Amino acid sequence: MSISMGAKTSIILRLKLEKELVSFGKIASIISEVGGDIIAIDVIQEGKTFTIRDITVNITDYGLGDRLVSIVKEISGVHVINVSDRTFLMHLGGKIETVPKMPIKNRDDLSRVYTPEVARVCKAIQEKSSRAHSLTIKRNTVAVVSDGSAVLGLGNIGPEAAMPVMEGKAMLFKQLAGVDAFPICLATQDTEEIIRIVKALAPTFGGINLEDIASPKCFEIEQRLSQELDIPVFHDDQHGTAVVALAGLINAVKLVGKDLADCKVVVCGIGAAGIACTKMLLAAGVRDVIGVDREGAIVATRRYENSFWNWYAAHTNPRRLEGSLSEVIKGADIFIGVSGPGVLKVEDIQSMAPDPIVFAMANPVPEIAPDQAEPYVRVMATGRSDYPNQINNVLCFPGIFRGALDCRASKITEEMKLAAAQAIASVVSDEELSEQYIIPSVFNSRVVEKVREAVIEAAYQSGVARRDRRSTQKEMAKGIAAKENAFSFSM
Amino acid sequence: MSISMGAKTSIILRLKLEKELVSFGKIASIISEVGGDIIAIDVIQEGKTFTIRDITVNITDYGLGDRLVSIVKEISGVHVINVSDRTFLMHLGGKIETVPKMPIKNRDDLSRVYTPEVARVCKAIQEKSSRAHSLTIKRNTVAVVSDGSAVLGLGNIGPEAAMPVMEGKAMLFKQLAGVDAFPICLATQDTEEIIRIVKALAPTFGGINLEDIASPKCFEIEQRLSQELDIPVFHDDQHGTAVVALAGLINAVKLVGKDLADCKVVVCGIGAAGIACTKMLLAAGVRDVIGVDREGAIVATRRYENSFWNWYAAHTNPRRLEGSLSEVIKGADIFIGVSGPGVLKVEDIQSMAPDPIVFAMANPVPEIAPDQAEPYVRVMATGRSDYPNQINNVLCFPGIFRGALDCRASKITEEMKLAAAQAIASVVSDEELSEQYIIPSVFNSRVVEKVREAVIEAAYQSGVARRDRRSTQKEMAKGIAAKENAFSFSM
Repeated sequence: MSISMGAKTSIILRLKLEKELVSFGKIASIISEVGGDIIAIDVIQEGKTFTIRDITVNITDYGLGDRLVSIVKEISGVHVINVSDRTFLMHLGGKIETVPKMPIKNRDDLSRVYTPEVARVCKAIQEKSSRAHSLTIKRNTVAVVSDGSAVLGLGNIGPEAAMPVMEGKAMLFKQLAGVDAFPICLATQDTEEIIRIVKALAPTFGGINLEDIASPKCFEIEQRLSQELDIPVFHDDQHGTAVVALAGLINAVKLVGKDLADCKVVVCGIGAAGIACTKMLLAAGVRDVIGVDREGAIVATRRYENSFWNWYAAHTNPRRLEGSLSEVIKGADIFIGVSGPGVLKVEDIQSMAPDPIVFAMANPVPEIAPDQAEPYVRVMATGRSDYPNQINNVLCFPGIFRGALDCRASKITEEMKLAAAQAIASVVSDEELSEQYIIPSVFNSRVVEKVREAVIEAAYQSGVARRDRRSTQKEMAKGIAAKENAFSFSM
Repeated sequence: MSISMGAKTSIILRLKLEKELVSFGKIASIISEVGGDIIAIDVIQEGKTFTIRDITVNITDYGLGDRLVSIVKEISGVHVINVSDRTFLMHLGGKIETVPKMPIKNRDDLSRVYTPEVARVCKAIQEKSSRAHSLTIKRNTVAVVSDGSAVLGLGNIGPEAAMPVMEGKAMLFKQLAGVDAFPICLATQDTEEIIRIVKALAPTFGGINLEDIASPKCFEIEQRLSQELDIPVFHDDQHGTAVVALAGLINAVKLVGKDLADCKVVVCGIGAAGIACTKMLLAAGVRDVIGVDREGAIVATRRYENSFWNWYAAHTNPRRLEGSLSEVIKGADIFIGVSGPGVLKVEDIQSMAPDPIVFAMANPVPEIAPDQAEPYVRVMATGRSDYPNQINNVLCFPGIFRGALDCRASKITEEMKLAAAQAIASVVSDEELSEQYIIPSVFNSRVVEKVREAVIEAAYQSGVARRDRRSTQKEMAKGIAAKENAFSFSM
């Protein structure tokens, strides 16, 4: 399955041409032959022996773009200086900026936001450090922290290369939920070092969103930070996926008329997301979860090198099933895949209980192609935007942090995650619910508000909300101060 | 000398009144008697036995505000819940926000700024990490890093309490120079730990502005980070002060017809700022600098526990003068004070060479009160905004980082700092130059552009600019992308 583009697009080739060796006409005809459509030419620099030009070419997919670049590179006298396209242009200079909330218009303003009067605000916080939650950006600011060790499906690409993802996440935080989020990509991949650094950064922030940190160190990092900090810490790759998957499952079982507590669930891929999904299922009352990884079912009769698998074995698979995915999936009601492409076969689905529910969430290529699975499943969900029922973290993290910040929660508890899942599920009404619509779209503007309300309520019930309820209610009455909730007009 | 307010202001008292014990009328009359002017009353909550009200009171100074609060607190049946004022209101929720540069309007936008297409941008940076300078916020983002150990004149108030200053600084960076600056206040004051953390944060940032870190550890931190990172590191308390002071001196000696290289200069207060001022003077060609601290002149014939003083002794005071400030200042052309209030006496000034130049920069109370010094000095400068010739770091840091980011400088060299000082000085024309005007106002919008140009030129000459000159020139032609250069309409 090739990754489709979001849209038809163009690329810009900056070429240096040696005049003696190659003419622009030759380049143009070669680009056309390959299938590129030249729509603009800009002369960047004209030398005696060379010319540098930007050539904008419409292309139908990036595969064509790559082919075109490699062919042009081979032409004698051509040096490809740079290739950019609309996506790259959107990233130029970064995608977020840090701006003053008000202009400093005169000396009076300057003396209030800076010296000498800022000293009074500093002293007020020094007297009572919890005032930082109202007098500084801690009130509304989340750090999006990564070490670049497990970015998207790209693997360990390092901190610099991870930044575009974290910046994108910061955009979503602000646009969808009015949360100020700042990306921090760390030049270390050492567990203890990451823990130490994030703890040292905590005075600035009201919450920590961990992102794209490899398993198993992500567990230790999240657990330790949650214990040692008094602000919410949330590893989105684990819990965001788990919350949204549970939201989808709540509606899926409702649709097929089953009770989640009675379902047999097979979770495939016992990494960070798989373990988090399982914990979420257990918290939601599911009793029969079987985890499967490359070695087959994870079972308490065996010992594993990975200590998290030993924990997993002790808390799941009550009937101690052994064997491959194909063996243990027999009679299962639900398949949750957070593994890799093509892991699930049609025959596996055929062996499931009636009305099989299949969440094939491997990205970008699911455990089974939706069109292949379609004849045999009752409800199907994936991580992809080009099929119905997309399980997308974007449904969870903005609202969960909005709620946590508003009630000044010290942690994100299991209750808050469960509440978030139920809130997301509740956006789909009984009338709307269908095999094609078990989970709201990321463009549904009601999601954030619902999640926020549910999370705040759960935070008070868990005893982790530190703001008095009246103040929180006043805050909620203001609505979400999203900068531009542009998604709302897409609905 | 009491610190004057930036403006007449008001405070808001939130009071809980026990109805049986106290009436609002009683409170009102007491506030009026003390000199407060009640301008608004808001009922916040009305209970059976109590009432909570916000009482807004105009006051003439914060001393009155404090007196008023302490008197009201003593009244039986009154509980002061909260006191706020206009300054505090400006700080509510923090003073900066992180916003997307463009809205995500639809799924096509989403797929470009986030998954799946962001992966192509990530891969491009993974292939060549220097691309982070153009494809991420590294292009334009500076970390304002403090450990809260030496904040303003408040001392070691810790990271939470330091945040309002760093946020104010971030506002100035953006408004004056279009630089995105993000405040990072660290929960550690350990030198090695701070160095490790800042190094780990570096992938995100294009520059590091160190701020309000105590001496002497600030030297080690700055030096090590400058050596070990490939982005500019600048401790503003040292070099910002030094650059702006030198700018003032350049114009002051021009005015009195002396040559800086021939002047005898006494620097009083050999902490971070004093050492940096001295280094800057030496770099500018001054040969006769004598440093004075509490123990008197620093001189090579003595050994000091503070290793920086040994360095200092070896590089200054060529005639090995000994003794107190009053002794060594005899015949000096220039006094630079970065020490404490009242250190300089009228008799000291009277013993200086003709046309004495006195920079009394201790904050908020100078080494000598300007009105006391006035009859005896030729040129006087302070750190205060309520006297002529304010030596204010705000003249330096926005432009110096604007220039460094634009040419992708790997460091801030001595040459760049000297160039910045000369650029600031050059804003005051020969026609404008007078005893009352040796340094431009912080509201002079030409300063940033001048500093930027000079710094970029010096960066290329120092060999630390990593961007090709054509690209930098194109960038400069765009002008400064200051968000709202509101200062410009104050001129």
